[in-house]
Amino acid sequence: MAEPAPDTIFTKIIKDELPCHRVFENEHVLAFLDITPLCEGHTLVIPKRQVERYEDLAAEEAAEIARVLGPLAKRVCAAAGANDYNILLNSGGVAGQVVPHVHFHIIPRRENDGLGYRWNAKPAENDALAELARRINQQSP
Amino acid sequence: MAEPAPDTIFTKIIKDELPCHRVFENEHVLAFLDITPLCEGHTLVIPKRQVERYEDLAAEEAAEIARVLGPLAKRVCAAAGANDYNILLNSGGVAGQVVPHVHFHIIPRRENDGLGYRWNAKPAENDALAELARRINQQSP
Repeated sequence: MAEPAPDTIFTKIIKDELPCHRVFENEHVLAFLDITPLCEGHTLVIPKRQVERYEDLAAEEAAEIARVLGPLAKRVCAAAGANDYNILLNSGGVAGQVVPHVHFHIIPRRENDGLGYRWNAKPAENDALAELARRINQQSP
Repeated sequence: MAEPAPDTIFTKIIKDELPCHRVFENEHVLAFLDITPLCEGHTLVIPKRQVERYEDLAAEEAAEIARVLGPLAKRVCAAAGANDYNILLNSGGVAGQVVPHVHFHIIPRRENDGLGYRWNAKPAENDALAELARRINQQSP
């Protein structure tokens, strides 16, 4: 398991030293509204244990969060008048992670909202994909 | 539980009727390289059961996927020469879901790759957030 992550603003929220607009809580997971949202209903879902990066969560910790995301997304969308949504995790600064404590974003989506992932996909060469898959499968689990 | 989702291209991949560049498989989950990737290492992670929308997965099905995502992202990034990554789920057409079978994207990130989520966040009014949280908490689970 990785080094404990440093305290962040989420630590204070978990410890109730800072208020939040709570929308879910159990022993392992806390969810609250982002106060600088991309849209109405933008929600953050975090593990209560301080861990900086998603791949450093124990499998069961990741599972605890996943059990929450779908039902919570449904409640958030129903209350915020949306039907569709993105679930997004940024792991690492290059990927857009700002607070060094694992967090999933639930982002309700509406037509023409200007949100979404930048999509600039191109077909790949089959041989290059086969070689990459071989390298991935050689990595230790 | 929702209606069974229709067959998609993922059904054929799961049944081995179409080839894929497989990077993980167990009883519940399959992961393979996207053949029209956003970048080197772009990987799709799907439940083997045909379900269109994430919120219609059983909690344990969502947990099975989540147990895979972190370790797999680490292997993908190591093989593709990246350190950071996004995990993205698009639920519904407005959110960018194209294939009607739940799929997570693992997207390795590099400096100045032009990828990432469009981020145009604005501080929200505290009263509006409190009222929204109240409405979310009133939704049946």
